[in-house]
Amino acid sequence: MSLLLADIEATANEKLDAGLRDYLNRGAQHDVTLEANREAFNRLRIRPRYMVDVSKRDLTARLFGDTLRAPICVSPFGLNRRFHSNGEFETAKGVSQCQTVMVVSSGSGVTIEQLAEREPLLVKWFQMFIYEDRVMTRDMAQRAERAGYKALVLTVDQNTMGLRYHNMKNAYVDTDERVNYRPYGVSKEVARDATWEDVKWLKGVVNIPVVIKGVLTAEDSRLAVNAGADAIFVSNHGGRQLDGSPATVC
Amino acid sequence: MSLLLADIEATANEKLDAGLRDYLNRGAQHDVTLEANREAFNRLRIRPRYMVDVSKRDLTARLFGDTLRAPICVSPFGLNRRFHSNGEFETAKGVSQCQTVMVVSSGSGVTIEQLAEREPLLVKWFQMFIYEDRVMTRDMAQRAERAGYKALVLTVDQNTMGLRYHNMKNAYVDTDERVNYRPYGVSKEVARDATWEDVKWLKGVVNIPVVIKGVLTAEDSRLAVNAGADAIFVSNHGGRQLDGSPATVC
Amino acid sequence: MSLLLADIEATANEKLDAGLRDYLNRGAQHDVTLEANREAFNRLRIRPRYMVDVSKRDLTARLFGDTLRAPICVSPFGLNRRFHSNGEFETAKGVSQCQTVMVVSSGSGVTIEQLAEREPLLVKWFQMFIYEDRVMTRDMAQRAERAGYKALVLTVDQNTMGLRYHNMKNAYVDTDERVNYRPYGVSKEVARDATWEDVKWLKGVVNIPVVIKGVLTAEDSRLAVNAGADAIFVSNHGGRQLDGSPATVC
Amino acid sequence: MSLLLADIEATANEKLDAGLRDYLNRGAQHDVTLEANREAFNRLRIRPRYMVDVSKRDLTARLFGDTLRAPICVSPFGLNRRFHSNGEFETAKGVSQCQTVMVVSSGSGVTIEQLAEREPLLVKWFQMFIYEDRVMTRDMAQRAERAGYKALVLTVDQNTMGLRYHNMKNAYVDTDERVNYRPYGVSKEVARDATWEDVKWLKGVVNIPVVIKGVLTAEDSRLAVNAGADAIFVSNHGGRQLDGSPATVC
Repeated sequence: MSLLLADIEATANEKLDAGLRDYLNRGAQHDVTLEANREAFNRLRIRPRYMVDVSKRDLTARLFGDTLRAPICVSPFGLNRRFHSNGEFETAKGVSQCQTVMVVSSGSGVTIEQLAEREPLLVKWFQMFIYEDRVMTRDMAQRAERAGYKALVLTVDQNTMGLRYHNMKNAYVDTDERVNYRPYGVSKEVARDATWEDVKWLKGVVNIPVVIKGVLTAEDSRLAVNAGADAIFVSNHGGRQLDGSPATVC
Repeated sequence: MSLLLADIEATANEKLDAGLRDYLNRGAQHDVTLEANREAFNRLRIRPRYMVDVSKRDLTARLFGDTLRAPICVSPFGLNRRFHSNGEFETAKGVSQCQTVMVVSSGSGVTIEQLAEREPLLVKWFQMFIYEDRVMTRDMAQRAERAGYKALVLTVDQNTMGLRYHNMKNAYVDTDERVNYRPYGVSKEVARDATWEDVKWLKGVVNIPVVIKGVLTAEDSRLAVNAGADAIFVSNHGGRQLDGSPATVC
Repeated sequence: MSLLLADIEATANEKLDAGLRDYLNRGAQHDVTLEANREAFNRLRIRPRYMVDVSKRDLTARLFGDTLRAPICVSPFGLNRRFHSNGEFETAKGVSQCQTVMVVSSGSGVTIEQLAEREPLLVKWFQMFIYEDRVMTRDMAQRAERAGYKALVLTVDQNTMGLRYHNMKNAYVDTDERVNYRPYGVSKEVARDATWEDVKWLKGVVNIPVVIKGVLTAEDSRLAVNAGADAIFVSNHGGRQLDGSPATVC
Repeated sequence: MSLLLADIEATANEKLDAGLRDYLNRGAQHDVTLEANREAFNRLRIRPRYMVDVSKRDLTARLFGDTLRAPICVSPFGLNRRFHSNGEFETAKGVSQCQTVMVVSSGSGVTIEQLAEREPLLVKWFQMFIYEDRVMTRDMAQRAERAGYKALVLTVDQNTMGLRYHNMKNAYVDTDERVNYRPYGVSKEVARDATWEDVKWLKGVVNIPVVIKGVLTAEDSRLAVNAGADAIFVSNHGGRQLDGSPATVC
């Protein structure tokens, strides 16, 4: 039985080939931000208060109209299917049982619609980018809305791809399996000319909230709110994008 | 000969099976607090003053009417018997020879009364909890008082049990051997609805001092004193309860 | 394929003999400053700003009249030839392709003039010292100017040689191969009596800018500027000179 | 050839038996102070100033009327003879060649007088304690003065011996070889009732300066000066006495 995260990691690392293992475990370049995240998290201290009646505890939280069992959501990560033949569906089932939010990656191994059909009761948000092709961008957003996703999570920290040396070394490639992108042919690159104006525009093409993911500065938080963001998702992409960016807690 | 604590630890670890060894050595979850305790203790510095006449030294301290050879007491720890067939009695004998206080755990392998009978001259305090069953709580407290224990030590940081992953992994179980609980059947769980009002109440059912163990914040210290606590026992339960709580020294 | 710096280092370390490997990798004495540099660099954090149009990026910088593709130059390091039979020339070719500055070491394995002839379009600066023989000092400076070097980089932190224990242990010697010094016979030692007056003097014997390399204090920066320095090159010589000097970033 | 301290240490550790090796390398109890010394020393940074004429350097220092080549002295350490058959004499010869001070340990393997006779030109100071037997204390001090020692170094941090667990474990004993103590029979223990009054008294029985060694607080420094100390020797006994005392630099 594996109860300790370290045990689960060890077991997984034994079973995975180098390419997938490094894709999963490592960050960009020299893992400076990845390590900074871990250290910062371990430095956090809880100040416990005792002799408080905890016989009835209520951790439920309301987010965009949904009630979650606890204010903890599952971040988007691509290609669960690579790790298990039924990957995305199994993840979705687990999150559904926990009654919290699954942020579904645009780079999933199943389509927006397939996942929605399989887990209609799960609270789903859809993670995406501003793409070079704005028509496609609008289409992706509206597909998610039509499929019942409750929010869009717009990732802003990937206008250039993180330099993931381990992936390069392992010649790791997985783009073909990211099925959501298949209908759009070649012009599906993340836009390098995206600005906060695109956020304003995106807010206009859907009627669900837009969350900005990847913000790391107070300045950008303010600009996000001014552009109409419904929430800020502080993230350094798990250290997988810009190595050297700060830890997400301090 | 084992003089270094590290040597004693190494010898013990060789002799103990995995279940008992991890029960003894490890804390809750990821041992973050356990390690924080060690690091904080090693950061402490003594400012020595020299050329002071130390030919006669007096470290004696008065605590609740008793004179101790030094202001250092032995913390409660359960089931000494698991480590040695005569465990609790041997510990008591040693503490008695040191002329200091033994805080006897409610989870001992011998009863309140057996230990008192065996070491009548030892200064004993009794560690316990507020239980779901308040009648049982009062009974435990009064048994200790009748048996000559000089104080109650009320542990407040265990209204939920620490997530001791190592114990789970090892399927370590020892509750049956905690003989003080046998008379009370099934309703011996630690209360989750205990508040400082219970401390006021406990003060009223015994005529010995009540020490509050597990307080980690200034706020709770004040509330403890207001509730009638005779002393505060700063503790994070050796890192065995809430992992992530602060070190006990800083 | 070696993409990770760590991989390239590992490969190089396998191929190099101990003398050259330690010359390359180690600093002076106990590597305290070398390690301090690494740690300080890894502590640096980038505060990324997102949703900015980065489709067209311009990192070009103007330095002493030249346009560089990015404000990153290549520091001087001696005897590239020891590591590859065509060492300095290959380095120069690479820097030229990057369209940035190569600071050519006075301790190169090829002469000032040979390198200039081979890479006429490369922006070259020449690193040198104030030598005991000031006539030779002037000659070196003027040779560089005549050969088309765009600036002098005067190293000030080597009036005594760093105690490189590893070189001593390996009996590593390379002075004979530093061909720029051959014409000057025996009096080519770095001057121990050099002061900021020598900088003023050096400024008078050439018509190209003079950069002061090795400054580590605000006080010396001010003195350098007062002596006519055109730029300050903050450096602790990669931890190869005075072990215990501070990291170059903080 | 061993140039690196680490190499010399490694060679010595191979040749020495466990008892002597631990006596040499380890501190008291858990080596907390020993490690703190090392870390603190490595944290020290030198702020180098350059372009200063260093062709003539003068590091000489005057101490109690003697001129030393540099203000760096050799601390007392006992029983050099255990490490080399001619131990103390070889150390003295080396220090003499360096033209600095040797602080000779009262626990040496040769007598006060033997060392003085062997190295008459060496600047020698004599390290001693206040002993239970004050007559013996005076005698030791006056023997040193008569033998030409230039100062007394009074160690104040050893009124109880450091708990050197490693020595206990190794059953390391060397007291018989400390020849200076032979004439005094049994009452040669370090006094536990020594106070600053003893310093005033010691100042009266010799006409050479008295240095107080082992002071670690500002308060004791002031008391030492008030008692007539000619100098303060900040020391934690190399971490060999009170484990947990602060590093000597910060």
